[in-house]
Amino acid sequence: MSGKTILAAGKFDILHLGHLAYLQQARELAGVDGKLVVVIALDSTIHGERGAPPVFPQEQRRRLVEALEFVDEAVLGYETRDQTSIVNDVKPDIIALGYDQHADIDELEEMFVREGLKCTIVRLEKREADGLCSSTLIRKRIIDYYRDNGTAR
Amino acid sequence: MSGKTILAAGKFDILHLGHLAYLQQARELAGVDGKLVVVIALDSTIHGERGAPPVFPQEQRRRLVEALEFVDEAVLGYETRDQTSIVNDVKPDIIALGYDQHADIDELEEMFVREGLKCTIVRLEKREADGLCSSTLIRKRIIDYYRDNGTAR
Repeated sequence: MSGKTILAAGKFDILHLGHLAYLQQARELAGVDGKLVVVIALDSTIHGERGAPPVFPQEQRRRLVEALEFVDEAVLGYETRDQTSIVNDVKPDIIALGYDQHADIDELEEMFVREGLKCTIVRLEKREADGLCSSTLIRKRIIDYYRDNGTAR
Repeated sequence: MSGKTILAAGKFDILHLGHLAYLQQARELAGVDGKLVVVIALDSTIHGERGAPPVFPQEQRRRLVEALEFVDEAVLGYETRDQTSIVNDVKPDIIALGYDQHADIDELEEMFVREGLKCTIVRLEKREADGLCSSTLIRKRIIDYYRDNGTAR
């Protein structure tokens, strides 16, 4: 069976082991000669979602994710809320959502079918990943240290 | 010519493009069938140097660095100030120091010669790496945002 193209997506602001667990799991779906393409959320998308910019600008986040051994390609998201355009360009066999990515799978699939796109959407399970696995927690850890000690370490 | 074993080292607390530039440059010294082994500073070493613990505990830093495509192996530093023991175990042909790593090359080389270790020490040049290339700057960026906005983003 030939390999598949898998699409994963996220913000990836301050890399942590949760990102590794997600991307490794996504890469496993691709098979030996498949590939994993990761879509990196634009700064403007993150700002819109959480009302604040990311710590790392988008191109830096893209290059860090692309440097991971199980990532074949990392691309920036598109300046549109219409997810069909990037899916149409990447043409993934499978879209791998992280366990914590909120999206209505049925709704997405219906949209793709309407656009004539053939891809399966799977939600990956939470995989055991010890340690600091949330950018929010990492920022909190830095700020708490600053508040307790009056210095940035 | 057969590949070389290169040893690089650092704290790698919050991965950034400066780390990628350093490790890519170190990997280039190894040649096609060489390997790059990265020594990750222990939490206790970092605490001793800057009087504060790192943001990411050592094993998490080790796993993140080892997930980079041009790193063959990442190992934790040893609980000793004697650098000859880890060099004796890894047996590198070349130790690649980053442009900002302060170490007396002559003194290190003399020490290795005394111990019968044959390895060359090179200091890599600063390579152009745009963006946030210092963990201190990254922490400062997070704290400044918190001070200005009263929230962690």
